[in-house]
Amino acid sequence: MQRLPGVGPKTAQRLALHIIKRPETEVEALAQALMAAKKQIGLCKECFHLSAEPICEICRNPNRDTRTICVVGDSRDVIALEKTREFKGKYHVLGGVISPIDGIGPEQLNIQPLVRRVSQLQPKEVILAISPSIEGETTTLYIGQLLKPFTKVTRIAFGLPVGGDLEYADEITLARALEGRRELE
Amino acid sequence: MQRLPGVGPKTAQRLALHIIKRPETEVEALAQALMAAKKQIGLCKECFHLSAEPICEICRNPNRDTRTICVVGDSRDVIALEKTREFKGKYHVLGGVISPIDGIGPEQLNIQPLVRRVSQLQPKEVILAISPSIEGETTTLYIGQLLKPFTKVTRIAFGLPVGGDLEYADEITLARALEGRRELE
Repeated sequence: MQRLPGVGPKTAQRLALHIIKRPETEVEALAQALMAAKKQIGLCKECFHLSAEPICEICRNPNRDTRTICVVGDSRDVIALEKTREFKGKYHVLGGVISPIDGIGPEQLNIQPLVRRVSQLQPKEVILAISPSIEGETTTLYIGQLLKPFTKVTRIAFGLPVGGDLEYADEITLARALEGRRELE
Repeated sequence: MQRLPGVGPKTAQRLALHIIKRPETEVEALAQALMAAKKQIGLCKECFHLSAEPICEICRNPNRDTRTICVVGDSRDVIALEKTREFKGKYHVLGGVISPIDGIGPEQLNIQPLVRRVSQLQPKEVILAISPSIEGETTTLYIGQLLKPFTKVTRIAFGLPVGGDLEYADEITLARALEGRRELE
């Protein structure tokens, strides 16, 4: 249990004791649900988002705009972006970001399939929505260079979070917010 | 002491007891420093930033670009922006944001002087760098409408803070980051 994310020794003990106290049928149901999830949930063959089917719900949806592909690091980012209800295109999940220190190079990520997909589908725009860490930046620039011959490549904006306060923003964010200013409509 | 920001009853007591224990000369020096600060520090006549002189250091500096004016809510925001070393123009401090609930309308802020300054100086650009709260948004849009006849009006970018994670960004910030995307250079 301790190996689960966010679960330390104390929580692990609490969880284990809780499970021991429950009736056997309930524990069996949980065990089977875990096995079923592990067996059924794979990656979408097109976009590499988590999916119970070979092709995920988003890729199967005929109402989604195929002319825009949004590239993210992780399936969690797809979920976060879907919650905004702003994006109507398709996704491509890299499965991580380039991080030489962790031994993750471009080959370990779904970058080749992305290039193939872009060269085949010829979307109007590829939006890079990769978290702005140092590794994320590297990944954004790397993929940008690869895709620019095929299509327009954009990246999500840096700046102040909505509801944030100028005074509490770090200097780099503030500098980026200033640099990325836009004309008022 | 309790009326100072961030000072509750306990801290106030600690501060008071500390001061009582110090030698009289030291306490007198503190009292005089407070009085001196209160007497000497006023607002710059041009930009309304805190200043010991009638015209503040930034407005007096001949190396600052007079063709760009950055409008902020508070003197603290000037200090935050100066730390980035990105902005070389001049500032204009509103002294707050429009907040009808607190009885603060445009008349209570340094908006009229701003319009006068812009119409006289005719800067190339006015950057609105007001914190993105609801009141801040109202203020940004209000001032934008007022200044647009005179000059180009821009606003700082919304989006993910640098080093932030897509997954933890709130939905509105994420939607704004997506909306404000820029083409990769």
